[in-house]
Amino acid sequence: MSEKMVPVLIAGKWRESKSVGSFQADNPSLGEPLPEKYPISSREEMQEAVQASSEAAMVLRTMSGEKIAEFLEAFASGIEQRSSEFVEMAHAETGLAKAPRLKDVELPRTTDQLRQAAAAARQGSWRRPIRDEAKKLYSFFAPIGPVVVMGPNNFPYAFNSAAGGDFAAAIAAHNPVIAKANTAHPGTTKLFAEVALEALKKTGLPPATVQLIYRVPSEIGFELVSHPLLGATGFTGSKNAGLKLKDAADRAGKPIYLEMSSVNPVVVLDGALRERGDAIAGEFFASCTLGAGQFCTNPGFVVVPDTEAGKKFVHAATQQFAAGTPGVLLGKSGREALTAAVGILQKNGAKVLCGGKAMPGPAYRFANTLLQVSGEEFLKHPHELQTEAFGPVSLLVMSRDTQQTVAILSHLEGNLTGTIYSDTSGKDDAEYNAIEPHLRYRVGRLLNDKMPTGVAVSPAMNHGGPYPATGHPGFTAVGIPTSIQRFVALHSYDNVRPERLPEALRS
Amino acid sequence: MSEKMVPVLIAGKWRESKSVGSFQADNPSLGEPLPEKYPISSREEMQEAVQASSEAAMVLRTMSGEKIAEFLEAFASGIEQRSSEFVEMAHAETGLAKAPRLKDVELPRTTDQLRQAAAAARQGSWRRPIRDEAKKLYSFFAPIGPVVVMGPNNFPYAFNSAAGGDFAAAIAAHNPVIAKANTAHPGTTKLFAEVALEALKKTGLPPATVQLIYRVPSEIGFELVSHPLLGATGFTGSKNAGLKLKDAADRAGKPIYLEMSSVNPVVVLDGALRERGDAIAGEFFASCTLGAGQFCTNPGFVVVPDTEAGKKFVHAATQQFAAGTPGVLLGKSGREALTAAVGILQKNGAKVLCGGKAMPGPAYRFANTLLQVSGEEFLKHPHELQTEAFGPVSLLVMSRDTQQTVAILSHLEGNLTGTIYSDTSGKDDAEYNAIEPHLRYRVGRLLNDKMPTGVAVSPAMNHGGPYPATGHPGFTAVGIPTSIQRFVALHSYDNVRPERLPEALRS
Repeated sequence: MSEKMVPVLIAGKWRESKSVGSFQADNPSLGEPLPEKYPISSREEMQEAVQASSEAAMVLRTMSGEKIAEFLEAFASGIEQRSSEFVEMAHAETGLAKAPRLKDVELPRTTDQLRQAAAAARQGSWRRPIRDEAKKLYSFFAPIGPVVVMGPNNFPYAFNSAAGGDFAAAIAAHNPVIAKANTAHPGTTKLFAEVALEALKKTGLPPATVQLIYRVPSEIGFELVSHPLLGATGFTGSKNAGLKLKDAADRAGKPIYLEMSSVNPVVVLDGALRERGDAIAGEFFASCTLGAGQFCTNPGFVVVPDTEAGKKFVHAATQQFAAGTPGVLLGKSGREALTAAVGILQKNGAKVLCGGKAMPGPAYRFANTLLQVSGEEFLKHPHELQTEAFGPVSLLVMSRDTQQTVAILSHLEGNLTGTIYSDTSGKDDAEYNAIEPHLRYRVGRLLNDKMPTGVAVSPAMNHGGPYPATGHPGFTAVGIPTSIQRFVALHSYDNVRPERLPEALRS
Repeated sequence: MSEKMVPVLIAGKWRESKSVGSFQADNPSLGEPLPEKYPISSREEMQEAVQASSEAAMVLRTMSGEKIAEFLEAFASGIEQRSSEFVEMAHAETGLAKAPRLKDVELPRTTDQLRQAAAAARQGSWRRPIRDEAKKLYSFFAPIGPVVVMGPNNFPYAFNSAAGGDFAAAIAAHNPVIAKANTAHPGTTKLFAEVALEALKKTGLPPATVQLIYRVPSEIGFELVSHPLLGATGFTGSKNAGLKLKDAADRAGKPIYLEMSSVNPVVVLDGALRERGDAIAGEFFASCTLGAGQFCTNPGFVVVPDTEAGKKFVHAATQQFAAGTPGVLLGKSGREALTAAVGILQKNGAKVLCGGKAMPGPAYRFANTLLQVSGEEFLKHPHELQTEAFGPVSLLVMSRDTQQTVAILSHLEGNLTGTIYSDTSGKDDAEYNAIEPHLRYRVGRLLNDKMPTGVAVSPAMNHGGPYPATGHPGFTAVGIPTSIQRFVALHSYDNVRPERLPEALRS
């Protein structure tokens, strides 16, 4: 074990942390800690980061979109040049497969996202300028100021604090980022920050545009997201942590965008099951166990008709879940959280059809798990039976009829996605029309005939939804340029002399 | 005094309230209560309103923008037909002049705003549809759901809960509105709701699209803004009330848009004063005393150079403030709040140059008041010396030099507006450039050479700003279609069959 702690990146310099403690990440495949010691930053260090970020923000505001784009592109290229280091490091820290997942899917997605953000920064459509020449009144969106990004454990690249979607969106709108690493993959995050600093120097942006700390005591985290000099925070992670940060930020009037929890309801209608029940069971199994089930859009809640076709679907799905080899979880705490969540579901009337337990062995694994509950029973404990089990686990709710399905959907809390499978020849259309309005307003993205785990980086994507999936139903965390709109402030210019207007507002 | 209480409008019916008490509004010109007794609604009544609104929302979502526009236009015409009733009622309840203020300025502004909202609903640009045909992914903005509007006391028409800017924006996005009247003008609000109900019936919208209650106990108000079936809240009023509502809404993850407080800093540079100091003093006096000083964008904080020209400006302004006849305030509580606010400013080192006291007599008046403090003194108590005095009151902060002005501006909290007056031949340009960045990011609207009290209804207006002026710097309360974006949810459709897509998303 190394004696020295890994340095932090503050105000453009890699330096020894003013730390109040240290932590180590785990190798989840081996179930043991990795050697590096990472610092837990002090209040003083947090304040230094915010001050440096605030100064960088003053400079970034005045730079052209072209300069911002050059940085994002240099950053993307720099990542590609060190891709094998990224794959080794993230595999060690997360247990996710090197290929195809890390190397061929998530890393290209991340650099593509940075390049899309570069194009958006260059084009500047996020500014949405409006000119009212008659009234000498002009408006556009301006950067919101320093942005704190706290990324999740499940996407070490695509949602990384120092390279992922929130990062790219914040930078595209000319904001500096203070990255707070996810403590499950601090080494991967450090690699990103190293490449970012080189790209900043190469392209002439303020070096404090990207800073990195790894962890702070929770009270310092609350001070960080509510700091007077802060613009906003982007958080992806657990509802428990998210709600505490939200409370602190809200009290200070600081915008915070959170992606917290979602069970992603799927409704399979009887006609669809009669038409292609086995195929749907296969899609369901594949989607629910992808990445060991640790996708924000994992189908964790399935409404199944209590019919012959429905029972056949449950049987087919159970066989697949029971036969599949469970993947390695991202960490020990995830395994503990799964045990707790499955316990809550059982306590509230759900029966385990298969799995239900943590797996033995040094690697962190949880058995592929299906639970089942009747519609009647669900309606007695609708809140508890929406407990998110973040892993290869799903709850099947057996519905008696359309009316009961509507009642079930009406009790749903806000979710990222909602899916309806229906017969392709139209046999389910009446039922579809009856239930769709009750699902539509409780989710950000509505799907047909397709599991929700694929989240395309498209301007038409909504990776967001009503509370508690996120903190505000009007914004998406994925999709450029739309996700950029979270990190802007509206600025109006009234009777300001023409030569003093920002260039984007001049006629 | 009438025995019966004025009815509430719930689910399309004027009915006796399920009340827990009653209140009366005051006639501020006479300093005595008006005869009508208005109910304070119970929890049961609040819940009935939310339930009816939720059902109306399901219908409004499916209606065309054309239908929404027809309602808004019929409503505007209906208001015009009863304009003399509106003028009499609002004058009695607010003391504002019948003409030009109520009849010729505010009522036409309000009907114009409703017609602009109608045009936006018809055109539908607020939906911002995005089609990604290759990925079969489509997104647009949808209505957010039932909207509670709580209007302020100072604009009985233009910001009225049942007809003003928030109302128009919410309805334009196909949302029903629960209007909670401002208790200073419940009669005016009832007139609007009467006309609205007739227009709803005439144009075939759900009768529960507009509902009216007058007042609720504060705990019921907190339940209202955090109700699971609610979409969002629009609030304009005091910071004290706003922050409590914000806290309740935030905890429930329900968007709340607030306009709360602003001292609207004005910086007058030395060159401008040497060039046209007397004229600027006149503009300042007129703007600060307009509507008895009760404008959200009232210039309540002026940074003046401590120079010969600055002293001359202070002298000229003081003469005008002292000579002017103070207008009638909107209510007794406003007079009390002014006394308290001026006391806080004095306690923290500000000296009264003129006024400083409530006026005798039955009408509610407060003397036109100027206070003065040095830059040094301000920097010792920057928070307290930004206390808003909502009336004909302003604090002059004497600045030693550019550096001190930057220091003063760097201590400003979020404001709706910020203004800089500078010499027209360019003598102040270096100082302008030095101070502008420090003002720009602390205000929603930046002005040159013009007082901030005029708030044009323009798409380029920003009547918003950083906290605590509002709760989020990305939104405006005035300006169509921009203000509509507060009351929308982002909806994405993924692989949804073409015939099931909303019309606005079909190719």
